[in-house]
Amino acid sequence: LTGRGQGQDRIETLIALMARLPGLGPRSARRAVLHLLRKRALVMAPLAQVMAQVAAEARDCTVCGTITTGEICDICADPRRDAGLVCVVQDVGDLWAMERAGVYRGRYHVLGGLLSALDAVGPEDIGVPRLVARAAGLREVILALPATVEGQTTAHVLQEALAGQGVTLSALAQGVPMGGELDYLDDGTIGAALSARRIL
Amino acid sequence: LTGRGQGQDRIETLIALMARLPGLGPRSARRAVLHLLRKRALVMAPLAQVMAQVAAEARDCTVCGTITTGEICDICADPRRDAGLVCVVQDVGDLWAMERAGVYRGRYHVLGGLLSALDAVGPEDIGVPRLVARAAGLREVILALPATVEGQTTAHVLQEALAGQGVTLSALAQGVPMGGELDYLDDGTIGAALSARRIL
Repeated sequence: LTGRGQGQDRIETLIALMARLPGLGPRSARRAVLHLLRKRALVMAPLAQVMAQVAAEARDCTVCGTITTGEICDICADPRRDAGLVCVVQDVGDLWAMERAGVYRGRYHVLGGLLSALDAVGPEDIGVPRLVARAAGLREVILALPATVEGQTTAHVLQEALAGQGVTLSALAQGVPMGGELDYLDDGTIGAALSARRIL
Repeated sequence: LTGRGQGQDRIETLIALMARLPGLGPRSARRAVLHLLRKRALVMAPLAQVMAQVAAEARDCTVCGTITTGEICDICADPRRDAGLVCVVQDVGDLWAMERAGVYRGRYHVLGGLLSALDAVGPEDIGVPRLVARAAGLREVILALPATVEGQTTAHVLQEALAGQGVTLSALAQGVPMGGELDYLDDGTIGAALSARRIL
């Protein structure tokens, strides 16, 4: 990229590592590193320190399974979050997407994957027993799983595992997304939206 | 942004710091951190380490003034780069832009700023004496300075400082940029391109 020799300059190494982050290419990585170099004491050193701490301390929340640097995560520790309501998501990225929407005030259960016979992922691997153990104190469990074969298999297994626990089980509605044009939607989504139509 | 409580989770701190980098917003910073969290040992820890090292070791190259983690930078240390040719640039970002073009095989002099009476930036502050000291062994000095008042003032002062040193002084050509449409170009550029027109 740079036309430079095989130098030992660690700045080039840093740029190469930054360029591998999603959303950053070689060019924007270089711009980001230039910004960091200009603010070495104020921005770069603290960022490096926090990143090293997170790399060392990050682990699964013992309650919900999301990644956190504490013993339990901020959401599980927050008394204002509804402890009777648990949303089941595939992974941390999906939890963050739910949080970004800013409309959910309950807690979570992060599976860390989906059931898959092919990849030999069983119920224990995605913390199903842990969810069942939590179920006693819960009012409702909301499944927010992908509408794929594996997502639906997982939903089915969770439904069976939670049957008879006296907890209401629900799933996110399927339908036309905000701003979605019918012409660009797949048949499955149109079918689901039609069968779940609301009376106006 | 997230609708979460005032938690102590360092992951949120890391996301906030990453989001301040140019080219990354809150959303892409979150995606980048998620990627890092998934590859803690393989990607995150090494990146944090290299970043801390660069923050601690980065300094000005004693020859050309660019930022490097070595005693002298890779370009000044590279015997294949033409030591008789020096390109004068305003800062490290401009040096990197020249390198990215991949068409220059000489060396550099990084001013680290431009002369400015307003900001009390004098010739010593931008390493003019250091450039003059280098001039004896040089064949040509190419000025790659911005076409602003301060850039041209700086070019003028460099021209005076290097007069009588027996070194050829040149400047980047001004004209129509690649893919540039006349309709969108400023008058100054059109004027410069006209007066510097080539006979075909």
